[in-house]
This record gives sequence, C-alpha cells and structure tokens, in this order.
Amino acid sequence: MDLNADPNCIFCRIVAGEIPCAKILETDEALAFLDIGPLAPGHVLLIPKWHVVKLDDMNASQAGAVLRHLPALGRAVRAAVGCEGYNILQNNGRCAHQEVMHVHFHVIPRNLDDEFNFNWPAGKYGDGELDAMREAIRNALEA
Amino acid sequence: MDLNADPNCIFCRIVAGEIPCAKILETDEALAFLDIGPLAPGHVLLIPKWHVVKLDDMNASQAGAVLRHLPALGRAVRAAVGCEGYNILQNNGRCAHQEVMHVHFHVIPRNLDDEFNFNWPAGKYGDGELDAMREAIRNALEA
Repeated sequence: MDLNADPNCIFCRIVAGEIPCAKILETDEALAFLDIGPLAPGHVLLIPKWHVVKLDDMNASQAGAVLRHLPALGRAVRAAVGCEGYNILQNNGRCAHQEVMHVHFHVIPRNLDDEFNFNWPAGKYGDGELDAMREAIRNALEA
Repeated sequence: MDLNADPNCIFCRIVAGEIPCAKILETDEALAFLDIGPLAPGHVLLIPKWHVVKLDDMNASQAGAVLRHLPALGRAVRAAVGCEGYNILQNNGRCAHQEVMHVHFHVIPRNLDDEFNFNWPAGKYGDGELDAMREAIRNALEA
C-alpha cells in the first residue's frame, strides 16, 4: 500500500515508526494509539495510515476501512477506563480545532462533571429554510 | 433487513416514515437528514437504520457500512454551506451529551467565531501511566 506519507507530518512519522507511540491497534489501513495530551486518561486517536488532511478528502471505501474500528475501540476504552460514556470527535480545519493536519478521530472518555465539555447552541430554521438547505446539500451530494 | 425498531425511539420512527425528515441520503443501512435544531445551518445527522443505543453496541461491519458515508456528507455540507470546516461528533451516554438514545453522528459546519465550541484541557501521563493505559486498553480489545 502506497502510504503517500508527508515527511513533515507527525502522524505520518508515527506510522513510519520514526516517532514512537503507545499503539492500541494496527491494520493495513488504520492505526490507533494513545493521545499523549489526553483530554482524559485513555483518550485514543484513530488515523488512516496514509497522509490525508481532511475527512472529505477520503473516499467511502477508505472511510469504511478505517472507521469500522471505532466500536471496538469504544468498547475497549470503556472497559479499561471504566468511564460512563465517551465522545467520538473529528475536526476538519483550524476553525473546527484541527491541530494536526492528518485526519484523526478522537475517542474521548467521559464522566459527569469532567473537564472536557462543549455548549449546544441549537438554532431553528425559518419558513422554507429547512427545505432549501436539504435541496442544496442533496444537489451538492449528487454533483 | 430486520431493523429491530424501538417504537418509542424518535429516530426509529423517522426511519419508518412515521415522522418526517429532511432527508439527505438513504441506503439499506444508513439514513442522513438535517438536524431540526442545528448548531449551524446545514447540521446533518447520520444514523444506522436499526435501533442501537451506543456505538460500542455495533460491530465493525455495521460501523463500516454506515460511516463510509461521512466523507461524502462532509463534502456536500461544505459545498452547500460554504463553511470553513466542520466537526464530526458522536456522543455515547448522557454524560457525553447524548440526547437521543439511538446512535447518531453529527456533521457540524464550522466557521471562525461561531457559536458552537469546546475547550481542550489536555493533560499528561505520569511516569509509567502511558504504558499501563496502553496495556489495559489492548487487553480489553483482545478480551
């Protein structure tokens, strides 16, 4: 498999073995390892082994091959850490808090009143806006 | 396909067509539709069509069949909304902000200085803690 590595990417260097990691799982397509700056102990990262910056730069088959491991990682983290729940989080772009420019899915252990949290400023669509947005996204999906 | 629907689950009722949705994509396994309480216009939900509460209750094949659609949804949302980036977020358990007890992946459009945000209280492992955590999670993964 051509990993198309970026020599300046820290995750590509981890895949290549140039930088060590606390490895959890490895397949031909995917690597999972502990985040060394964890939001909670047991915070795991799951990455594609080839260099890809954003999720939308992957195809469906590639995404399936990597993301199929998320349930097993969730089960293992919950069992090992004993957390009440967990978040899966993946950030695309600096405005979305992406810090390493190589696709990575966070598995973040959660408990009530822990330190990581987010707000939920739910909005509403006005008259006709929901249908217009549905059409715009469907048209983009089919383009 | 036996969808194993829960008649009290709002997402199972959407899958069954009993409650309308602004549908974006549908396959045998997966349904994507607009969140009617969006964190930003264009906020999309991707769900498995059968009733499953948490991600870790799915198997690898099921996860792959559903999550393979995330890149196309990300591309379509970015194109339709014109956002700078987006987050993929999936919440397991009330402590992790899960509000509907049926697995759902959020695709959340993001721009600088928008309303949805989270903190990032990165910690550190002490001496030996990283290796111990790696072993605990790997053992749980193999159990």
